[in-house]
Amino acid sequence: MFQIIFLLSLFLSISNAANQDFCVADLKAPDTPSGYPCKPAATVTVDDFAFSGLIAPGNTTNIISAAVTPAFVGQFPGVNGLGLSAGRLDIAVGGVIPLHTHPGANELLVVTQGHITAGFVSSASTVYVKTLKKGEIMVFPQGLLHFQVGAGKRNAVGFVIFSSTSPGLQILDFALFASNFSTPLITKTTFLDPVLVKKLKSVLGGSG
Amino acid sequence: MFQIIFLLSLFLSISNAANQDFCVADLKAPDTPSGYPCKPAATVTVDDFAFSGLIAPGNTTNIISAAVTPAFVGQFPGVNGLGLSAGRLDIAVGGVIPLHTHPGANELLVVTQGHITAGFVSSASTVYVKTLKKGEIMVFPQGLLHFQVGAGKRNAVGFVIFSSTSPGLQILDFALFASNFSTPLITKTTFLDPVLVKKLKSVLGGSG
Amino acid sequence: MFQIIFLLSLFLSISNAANQDFCVADLKAPDTPSGYPCKPAATVTVDDFAFSGLIAPGNTTNIISAAVTPAFVGQFPGVNGLGLSAGRLDIAVGGVIPLHTHPGANELLVVTQGHITAGFVSSASTVYVKTLKKGEIMVFPQGLLHFQVGAGKRNAVGFVIFSSTSPGLQILDFALFASNFSTPLITKTTFLDPVLVKKLKSVLGGSG
Amino acid sequence: MFQIIFLLSLFLSISNAANQDFCVADLKAPDTPSGYPCKPAATVTVDDFAFSGLIAPGNTTNIISAAVTPAFVGQFPGVNGLGLSAGRLDIAVGGVIPLHTHPGANELLVVTQGHITAGFVSSASTVYVKTLKKGEIMVFPQGLLHFQVGAGKRNAVGFVIFSSTSPGLQILDFALFASNFSTPLITKTTFLDPVLVKKLKSVLGGSG
Amino acid sequence: MFQIIFLLSLFLSISNAANQDFCVADLKAPDTPSGYPCKPAATVTVDDFAFSGLIAPGNTTNIISAAVTPAFVGQFPGVNGLGLSAGRLDIAVGGVIPLHTHPGANELLVVTQGHITAGFVSSASTVYVKTLKKGEIMVFPQGLLHFQVGAGKRNAVGFVIFSSTSPGLQILDFALFASNFSTPLITKTTFLDPVLVKKLKSVLGGSG
Amino acid sequence: MFQIIFLLSLFLSISNAANQDFCVADLKAPDTPSGYPCKPAATVTVDDFAFSGLIAPGNTTNIISAAVTPAFVGQFPGVNGLGLSAGRLDIAVGGVIPLHTHPGANELLVVTQGHITAGFVSSASTVYVKTLKKGEIMVFPQGLLHFQVGAGKRNAVGFVIFSSTSPGLQILDFALFASNFSTPLITKTTFLDPVLVKKLKSVLGGSG
Repeated sequence: MFQIIFLLSLFLSISNAANQDFCVADLKAPDTPSGYPCKPAATVTVDDFAFSGLIAPGNTTNIISAAVTPAFVGQFPGVNGLGLSAGRLDIAVGGVIPLHTHPGANELLVVTQGHITAGFVSSASTVYVKTLKKGEIMVFPQGLLHFQVGAGKRNAVGFVIFSSTSPGLQILDFALFASNFSTPLITKTTFLDPVLVKKLKSVLGGSG
Repeated sequence: MFQIIFLLSLFLSISNAANQDFCVADLKAPDTPSGYPCKPAATVTVDDFAFSGLIAPGNTTNIISAAVTPAFVGQFPGVNGLGLSAGRLDIAVGGVIPLHTHPGANELLVVTQGHITAGFVSSASTVYVKTLKKGEIMVFPQGLLHFQVGAGKRNAVGFVIFSSTSPGLQILDFALFASNFSTPLITKTTFLDPVLVKKLKSVLGGSG
Repeated sequence: MFQIIFLLSLFLSISNAANQDFCVADLKAPDTPSGYPCKPAATVTVDDFAFSGLIAPGNTTNIISAAVTPAFVGQFPGVNGLGLSAGRLDIAVGGVIPLHTHPGANELLVVTQGHITAGFVSSASTVYVKTLKKGEIMVFPQGLLHFQVGAGKRNAVGFVIFSSTSPGLQILDFALFASNFSTPLITKTTFLDPVLVKKLKSVLGGSG
Repeated sequence: MFQIIFLLSLFLSISNAANQDFCVADLKAPDTPSGYPCKPAATVTVDDFAFSGLIAPGNTTNIISAAVTPAFVGQFPGVNGLGLSAGRLDIAVGGVIPLHTHPGANELLVVTQGHITAGFVSSASTVYVKTLKKGEIMVFPQGLLHFQVGAGKRNAVGFVIFSSTSPGLQILDFALFASNFSTPLITKTTFLDPVLVKKLKSVLGGSG
Repeated sequence: MFQIIFLLSLFLSISNAANQDFCVADLKAPDTPSGYPCKPAATVTVDDFAFSGLIAPGNTTNIISAAVTPAFVGQFPGVNGLGLSAGRLDIAVGGVIPLHTHPGANELLVVTQGHITAGFVSSASTVYVKTLKKGEIMVFPQGLLHFQVGAGKRNAVGFVIFSSTSPGLQILDFALFASNFSTPLITKTTFLDPVLVKKLKSVLGGSG
Repeated sequence: MFQIIFLLSLFLSISNAANQDFCVADLKAPDTPSGYPCKPAATVTVDDFAFSGLIAPGNTTNIISAAVTPAFVGQFPGVNGLGLSAGRLDIAVGGVIPLHTHPGANELLVVTQGHITAGFVSSASTVYVKTLKKGEIMVFPQGLLHFQVGAGKRNAVGFVIFSSTSPGLQILDFALFASNFSTPLITKTTFLDPVLVKKLKSVLGGSG
């Protein structure tokens, strides 16, 4: 029923038509505002589209009893140009993902184990908080301060997905106390006590 | 240190400034190309941003031994305007999410239980297939045919997140055999045998 | 009335202001998610913005009695960054552009000769079909299965324009039967008969 | 092989999932920045996606010996939300589509009959001009002054497609001489002679 | 040279073509993700496109010795759909615009009087600070914590322009201490001292 | 309270997460449709985000008694990817910024000194004109012809901000009379008198 001539003529005419269903990042090239240049399609394999780095729990034996493992474009080049990236949250009992923002993306959280109390603060200074159980999802609009806290008697796990391949991550304590933000400017722009600022800087490694 | 005058003057000047951190869908209003009109901010609660409909497994006692449960904007109005939505896949042993596309979104799959063999076909007719285990993620570029198949000896569960609040869902078998697509046009445009087409239509309920 | 000083002063101050009215693709550079890097403006000529490759009819002496000739960014670098590309359809009597999708673009068809029966299937499994005559136009939303079939007693010609410089082209038969999509996975995810799948693969060159 | 339970369970879970493959304009509702609200999907027919208004030639028995017939969203509601619209150019011998811009869209011209000399002026004051024959296409970047002139010994026809559903159309002569643009402001901002301005206004109906 | 027939024929064919050069907000209609519905073009005047609310200095006789006056879409409906809005900063000697983010927009500051020390903190916890004088401009990427402080011996004035009509405004102190953010959750997610939190809440009016 | 282990574990897991809060242009690399490639974040300083080139007035001792000084991405690489750029207008008494368009951006004008009469023409040939004083702002939708004219008895200054890093600038007189636009094509497409066209070309340096 089909003949070789069909394949030849049709294939020839569309041979250059099938470009850029996807654009797997060439992370060695410079980034652009729309993402990284594409690696050659001929070198792309299924392993560019799948990512195993979120299988293992993050190490929560730290002061926050929690860990964030990113699968942004820098770790997972297959998301380049697709407007999506991901991460894994591990929160031990009593653990906390400190108050933070993602300046470049909306976030959707899927709780896959345990209970997580999550919340965000709007521009109108309203706080939206809820304790989520396994299978529940919640969204956090771009750029708003939000947090996740362990809420049960066992470790909690969540997966977060972002509406950008480079959501960014600005942790409030790090921005203030682990940066080179000068203490006079911090106190002037936050009304926090300079003694407190200096103490937290000494712990978190801030300067200035 | 702070005084009422601070609050008053600052609040007054910014009282109209805090709009549209979010735009929770008013599903009773007509949709627009950018999404639904926003319900009034004063009526928004945290329950608009959280969704419990994916907690329970879908019913897989059917012929495909699988189920898809959507959390698109129609079910989860809090995603309106955020460029994200979600769904839950339940795949019993031997189950299958049939070949389909999402015409309006890229997809990111998180396997949260069991093993899933997933794949997609590119415009260049290359098939990218991989068997994923719990914690692995995979992306499926917009509009490309893809599938998920149970791959282990126990039920598998996955969460899918989309880069749109209305990703759409075009199941190949439904488009061909559960629609009003006329048999002569199907056979002419797919080269499938009309006997086969009629048989599948009789099963799936297609007409034409 | 005008003086040289006007030109000098005004030209000097705006000499760097006139960049990127356009961005003609440098096809030898790697693609990015937003398109190809721009060739230097000084090397751009009107021939970058015009394309003659759609003047000649495609060769329809093949099994589908039809041809698709693309003017995507790969063929027509002047469209780079403009969110538009084009193609030409030639459909001999009885010819058919098989069922396919453009995963990356909406499509607008202009019939310029003869009659074409065109249609698409929505996510809701509704088929929208119409026979178009010369001068009629029709749109096909992104990612949905659609087709064009010759409908008159003479050759038909149409021009298709896409809302992207890289619309992609996924022909259903090629995705299934001209790819490396394994027969067991095809039958499992489409419910097609394996005997049929193998027969079509042998014709179209599929493997797996 | 298939059973009713398959259809029931699968259909039920996705019944709300298939929204907004498209958004046909409800032109009686107020426009929004992203386009018109969608008419209910249940009332959509194939005639919303096809448009017959460009079949007939425009009337060129006028002073420019040319006509532009639009198929923007206001005429062709099926393009709403798809980022595409169209128009038809009829240019009699010696006719001209006067210098104009589309402030809201890039343009792709397909010549379908005769010869058209087309050109645009860049921000760098370079003019790109070419005489196109039947089957040739040319792009005009957004917002730049451009024109089409009949170039042969018979009537010419072209179809133009835009990267927006509302490209706008600013005809230079109309902006200056058919508007309420005051003559002193015109002469001050264009250096044209006031006598000339007044003469052209009297012809084209301008005031001010 | 021109004749009535020209005007009539040309005007008739394009009478519906000129829609949506702009979309002035109808603020009484519900907002959408892309902005407010448009008020009828016939009711639009130049006063929709101009805004006088930033002429007068804001009242800086408050505890921060500063004021922010917004010209977002809620105040200035002409920006609707244009992806731009503005604001005025008045900073008396020693005044401060406290640490804040705009979750929905990039910002460009133009200093028009006096000296302003401005800075932002990146996701990598680097602080970029500079003292700007009259005529200097500075950009602040979306969603990042930033501040402006008076730096001279006289009042300073700046105009800020945003890449969105609804940039939002999340003032850190207000999010923490003027909201219903519960003290236990604040201390858990910021490591601030609960005594301090309660003190600041009592001043700023926070609850919880 | 905090311990080193916190910093180490958290920093390690997010070390690659903080990319592309911004993308300062590497102007030596080729431009792309989304902007220039990013210079390495490690080489970025605050001086990339601030720009001093608009402090000094432009030279208005020319025939238009006005000057435009751009701060587009070519001058101010920190705006790359941020969708914003700026410029400074200096208009001496009687000066004029001639009729022009920005094909790639909406514009927001802030008057910072004196009085400016500004206006634009819509696609519907309506002219919106207003005389603005210090502190007033006005928007000009993308691609529409507009102008600014000195309106008082002293020099006027304005800052313009654009919704793109590359707004472009097409000055009508330059497009017509300082370009290689052939006189026959100009007269044919504008109905201007060829004698006038040639005279203005001789002044402004046009050819063709």
